[in-house]
Amino acid sequence: MSILCVGSVALDSVETPFGKAERVLGGSAVFFTAAASVFSPVRVVGVVGDDYPLDELAFLEARGADLSGIEKGRGESFFWAGRYHYDLNTRDTLETRLGVFADFQPKIPDAFRDSRHVFLGNIDPTLQHKVLDQVDAPEVVACDTMNYWISDSRKELLSLLERVDILMVNDAEARQLADEPNLLKASRWIRDRGPGIVVVKKGEHGAILFADGWAFFAPGYPLEVVFDPTGAGDAFAGGFMGHVARTDSLAAEDLRRAMIFGSAMGSYSVENFSVDRFKTLQEQEIYDRVREFREMTAFEFRMEERHA
Amino acid sequence: MSILCVGSVALDSVETPFGKAERVLGGSAVFFTAAASVFSPVRVVGVVGDDYPLDELAFLEARGADLSGIEKGRGESFFWAGRYHYDLNTRDTLETRLGVFADFQPKIPDAFRDSRHVFLGNIDPTLQHKVLDQVDAPEVVACDTMNYWISDSRKELLSLLERVDILMVNDAEARQLADEPNLLKASRWIRDRGPGIVVVKKGEHGAILFADGWAFFAPGYPLEVVFDPTGAGDAFAGGFMGHVARTDSLAAEDLRRAMIFGSAMGSYSVENFSVDRFKTLQEQEIYDRVREFREMTAFEFRMEERHA
Repeated sequence: MSILCVGSVALDSVETPFGKAERVLGGSAVFFTAAASVFSPVRVVGVVGDDYPLDELAFLEARGADLSGIEKGRGESFFWAGRYHYDLNTRDTLETRLGVFADFQPKIPDAFRDSRHVFLGNIDPTLQHKVLDQVDAPEVVACDTMNYWISDSRKELLSLLERVDILMVNDAEARQLADEPNLLKASRWIRDRGPGIVVVKKGEHGAILFADGWAFFAPGYPLEVVFDPTGAGDAFAGGFMGHVARTDSLAAEDLRRAMIFGSAMGSYSVENFSVDRFKTLQEQEIYDRVREFREMTAFEFRMEERHA
Repeated sequence: MSILCVGSVALDSVETPFGKAERVLGGSAVFFTAAASVFSPVRVVGVVGDDYPLDELAFLEARGADLSGIEKGRGESFFWAGRYHYDLNTRDTLETRLGVFADFQPKIPDAFRDSRHVFLGNIDPTLQHKVLDQVDAPEVVACDTMNYWISDSRKELLSLLERVDILMVNDAEARQLADEPNLLKASRWIRDRGPGIVVVKKGEHGAILFADGWAFFAPGYPLEVVFDPTGAGDAFAGGFMGHVARTDSLAAEDLRRAMIFGSAMGSYSVENFSVDRFKTLQEQEIYDRVREFREMTAFEFRMEERHA
């Protein structure tokens, strides 16, 4: 199953305690696609300026990503520069230049309109609506958003949620959206407004999926070196949706595995700058990490203990 | 196996968004014992003033806790007053009066000296040393500490670690102790100084156990209402050590289960003020929650997926 992915295709300049990368591949659509394309073909829609090194995206095409939906605009590509603090949990944005992204009006190519799986990266909810309007019969729509849209485009976002199956946000965004500090209550509030599934990403603390009457928790993988946290949430979304599309199933058992594959891809993402880790990532490494996740969380429960 | 527990026996006045409790049972030894005594007998050493409602501890004795090591001093009991913020993740300390606890010199009764399992609650590391000096042949020593001792009694704490098997601290304390933001590296630094096992408590984000070549992650239980977070870490330690003592084993499989039983007891602790939830807690409820933890984290990994 191909996934339609709409989001930013950007250039990032990143400083971490471990080094510096200048004008490297970034943006939600790029991180998502780098992770998702391991599992399923991805159809990418976005916009870049005339300064974008499109040839560097060739490794995604080699894995089955269709980049024909990336428009070339006149001007500069979306540019973000940031510096991470010593503990890598906080960062300062040094510069944001929207460039051609400021006037982005997603146009879904005819060949992409039959997509049944859709990932709406973090863009204006009005545009997210317009993307869905151009898809014939979307069956599984996953969506990301951020604090800015939650406060400033609340009405549009709430009406969008009625068309969304899986909302993927971080814990602060879930709390802000529901105006509720308790995550369990916040996720119920959100689920009452459309998305049957809410995935809350908590960075180093892992991720929780809330669904109808059940929840699933994936831990953060304890890495010795977090090299660059940029894009980890989008890589998580890519691993998750890639697995959802591959299995073409929203059954609980498949969603549990999707959470773990998402966590594995998020954890690999931060091992190098940009999407560099995905260029060398071997399938076996993914399965090895999934197995480690199981070893980190599995325990036996013996009923005879009750009477010990 | 009986556990020797040395720590504070206090009175707490607590305000949360859900209500207020005045001068209720508190202190690390009380929360620890309330949770641990479900699994193993506990021998408690501490000190109270002449204002302490010792009869309210009777429910612990009924479950096999031996309170004969609680000294009665002249003066006031250790008193703490605090107010939790709206999101319950932060709190203000309104008042701390050490009372008789200021001059606490733990005396281990003769009948307790053969204890093989020891829990050293968060007190001056010099006193924690003196406790161990009075135990014949401690085999499994677990220890808690806090930022104050880490900075101001560092030398004593580091020499104590050589005598400790399991260090149980929160993530900020682990990072401070090792002066290292990365938890995996911090836990290795600590493990190199004595404790073969480091348990890092992360509140609502769960807990991680680091041991030789493996790690285990227990999620935070997603509660609809966190009524009063006070003592959750000590209740976690109680469930963990209670299970360790009951199984008399530090095998990986038993430690994994201990993490889950600790998490279950921590999650029940916050459902009411003080140790009130433990007064009514039924064995079946504990096993139900352990089963929920498994449902929240278990996933199947099918090798055939590799070639899907």
